[in-house]
Amino acid sequence: MLPNGFKVGGIRSGLSKKAGKKDLALFISESPAHAAGMFTQNVAKAAPVLIDIDRLEKGDRFFGVIANSGCANACTGTRGAKDAEYMCSSVEKAFNLNEKSVLCASTGVIGQYLNISKNKFRDSIDLLKNSVGVSPKCEDDAVLAIMTTDTFVKKTCRKVKVKNGETKIWGCVKGAGMIHPNLQGFHATMLSFILTDADIGGKSLQKILEKSVEKSFNCVSVDGDTSTNDTVIVLANGQSETGNLSKNDMTNFIKAFDDLTLELAKSMARDGEGATKFVEIEVKNTKTKNDAKLIASTVATSPLFKTAVFGADANWGRVLAAVGRAGVNFDLGKVDIYIGGVHTFKNGFALNFSEQTAKKALLKKEIQVVIDLKAGKESSKYYTCDFSYDYVKINGDYRS
Amino acid sequence: MLPNGFKVGGIRSGLSKKAGKKDLALFISESPAHAAGMFTQNVAKAAPVLIDIDRLEKGDRFFGVIANSGCANACTGTRGAKDAEYMCSSVEKAFNLNEKSVLCASTGVIGQYLNISKNKFRDSIDLLKNSVGVSPKCEDDAVLAIMTTDTFVKKTCRKVKVKNGETKIWGCVKGAGMIHPNLQGFHATMLSFILTDADIGGKSLQKILEKSVEKSFNCVSVDGDTSTNDTVIVLANGQSETGNLSKNDMTNFIKAFDDLTLELAKSMARDGEGATKFVEIEVKNTKTKNDAKLIASTVATSPLFKTAVFGADANWGRVLAAVGRAGVNFDLGKVDIYIGGVHTFKNGFALNFSEQTAKKALLKKEIQVVIDLKAGKESSKYYTCDFSYDYVKINGDYRS
Repeated sequence: MLPNGFKVGGIRSGLSKKAGKKDLALFISESPAHAAGMFTQNVAKAAPVLIDIDRLEKGDRFFGVIANSGCANACTGTRGAKDAEYMCSSVEKAFNLNEKSVLCASTGVIGQYLNISKNKFRDSIDLLKNSVGVSPKCEDDAVLAIMTTDTFVKKTCRKVKVKNGETKIWGCVKGAGMIHPNLQGFHATMLSFILTDADIGGKSLQKILEKSVEKSFNCVSVDGDTSTNDTVIVLANGQSETGNLSKNDMTNFIKAFDDLTLELAKSMARDGEGATKFVEIEVKNTKTKNDAKLIASTVATSPLFKTAVFGADANWGRVLAAVGRAGVNFDLGKVDIYIGGVHTFKNGFALNFSEQTAKKALLKKEIQVVIDLKAGKESSKYYTCDFSYDYVKINGDYRS
Repeated sequence: MLPNGFKVGGIRSGLSKKAGKKDLALFISESPAHAAGMFTQNVAKAAPVLIDIDRLEKGDRFFGVIANSGCANACTGTRGAKDAEYMCSSVEKAFNLNEKSVLCASTGVIGQYLNISKNKFRDSIDLLKNSVGVSPKCEDDAVLAIMTTDTFVKKTCRKVKVKNGETKIWGCVKGAGMIHPNLQGFHATMLSFILTDADIGGKSLQKILEKSVEKSFNCVSVDGDTSTNDTVIVLANGQSETGNLSKNDMTNFIKAFDDLTLELAKSMARDGEGATKFVEIEVKNTKTKNDAKLIASTVATSPLFKTAVFGADANWGRVLAAVGRAGVNFDLGKVDIYIGGVHTFKNGFALNFSEQTAKKALLKKEIQVVIDLKAGKESSKYYTCDFSYDYVKINGDYRS
């Protein structure tokens, strides 16, 4: 259920992806919207990322985002920049919008040029213009058109009751590999587009986004690789017509927003390339928040831990080895480790737990690992998946 | 060919490893030797590591190292410490040596206790005492007894001409998984033992070791995991009887020493768990040495890059994505990337290279990746392997 005034859609343009699959998506508002964005911190930023950063810095209101999949338009120099600009301007012309009022995003193979010919692309935009709508099918088409190795459509929505009625938030995400986002300030193969009809200014929206990403997208790792294209864009068009939000309304809005980004972030880990299991790592009772996050991310990115989860092996030794090399000092004699609810390690010692019970717990689709340092009051959660044969298969043969 | 005055051997003791395999090794000098050591920086250091650090700090001369495989004796508290001490003292008694003149090392599963019963272990030491020798078979037995998932014996030696004759250096290493050593000052599932009959004092030996490790063992990554047990120990017993080394002799000795550690380090990458290819990553022309090392290690630990190598896919985009997230700033417009000798990326742009030629180069067993930043004069090499189905197989089912 899209927020008021937004239409979305996705088509097959032949722009980049292989035969048959949808590869071009449009998220568009009928009225100008405030916008916020966060982008990859990779030094090698893709052309669309550079354009969005520039437009968001200089511009005020935006109408939408055009996004393609199959080709990342990264490391493509001035030609890539022109291609990305052309994607945006084609939408601006087709919808009679101001110049530089449309943002763009790409995901796919790095270093290839978009297969973009002016006439053909204009035809694609016309087709897209006639395809966008508000139906669940349009939503699915839009998300399908930004997917690469994703195996399912990742979208969700929230309704927020406010004093003068109701606002809606809708969000989608794509991303299954090269996932270890590191989005900050102004900075995709994670693409996420969030639409809301709430009336919120650009600066407030940016703040809400940055805080939310820190607890959601920045706490997900599939393989520890940060992409050249990671992008999150939020558009708020105010069409819920509920006027300015009260302080209480804003609290409720932020809660719903955080809830939405967390659901989207977790769905990426669930759909990690080759993933057979979803893993939540909670590091508790650390001195600082950063300690907790460092340890959680080190465990989440350990290939030895992730292959053990794939093998349903309650190998807490590998968890501990990762904890120990995270760069955080701690008292080993106070550490507890729980894997799939089984207490495996207590105060620095291995517990004589039932391997059978642990195996059973690890054969489940959702696994929780808890690491308790008993050193303070901070904590952090991180979301990842296991490391399977299929991860190697998918990535050993990605381009061909 | 062992240096003068050293004997080595390996037997099956039943101490830790599964049925049939050798699991207990001894490296021993007939006269007291100067020693140097470097150990893991993991906060969770195994019992033998803690004992060695203590002995090397307090002691002066040492006779040897007793090492077992199959059980890491890590996270085993005071019982583990006692077991490790007992390993040492049993050797000291059997050979009539001073107390605390023997060092120890363990590798294997974390969190399990050694299967050590006093009488049985003394019998094992007696057997080992009768087994040590100087033959190539004794060398192989010693190395076999410290191997876990290693698939071949990794040992090598060097002869160094000095003004009064000749000194020898012999070294071995084990390690195929949980390999990303980070040895510093005083800090294993990498175990390396280096024996020499040169007459070099402990302090000099420590300096030579630290400099050498920085260019060898610390430039190898199989999976980015740093173990609780990483250990390198050098023993120098002076039995070459060539007296003090001249400055020129020392230069030659260090050259041979560095050459030996580099060969051992590379052999670990060649024998990486599930590895089908050896990969050398050279980062050239960076502003600082640290920049080069950071980038090289980030590429070497990227699962996306490593699976692409397994798939013989000249996916320079993944190399570039890793370079970009290494935390080093650079001008993308100056970057060149060569994969298997094929120039794939030049001054920020994809080259139109032959995919067939690249595929052929990547089907070889040894692959070199060169990243040229054209930003300075520093460089660094890093050694790793590809990421295959077998890595997942080996590690999804390691304990059982």
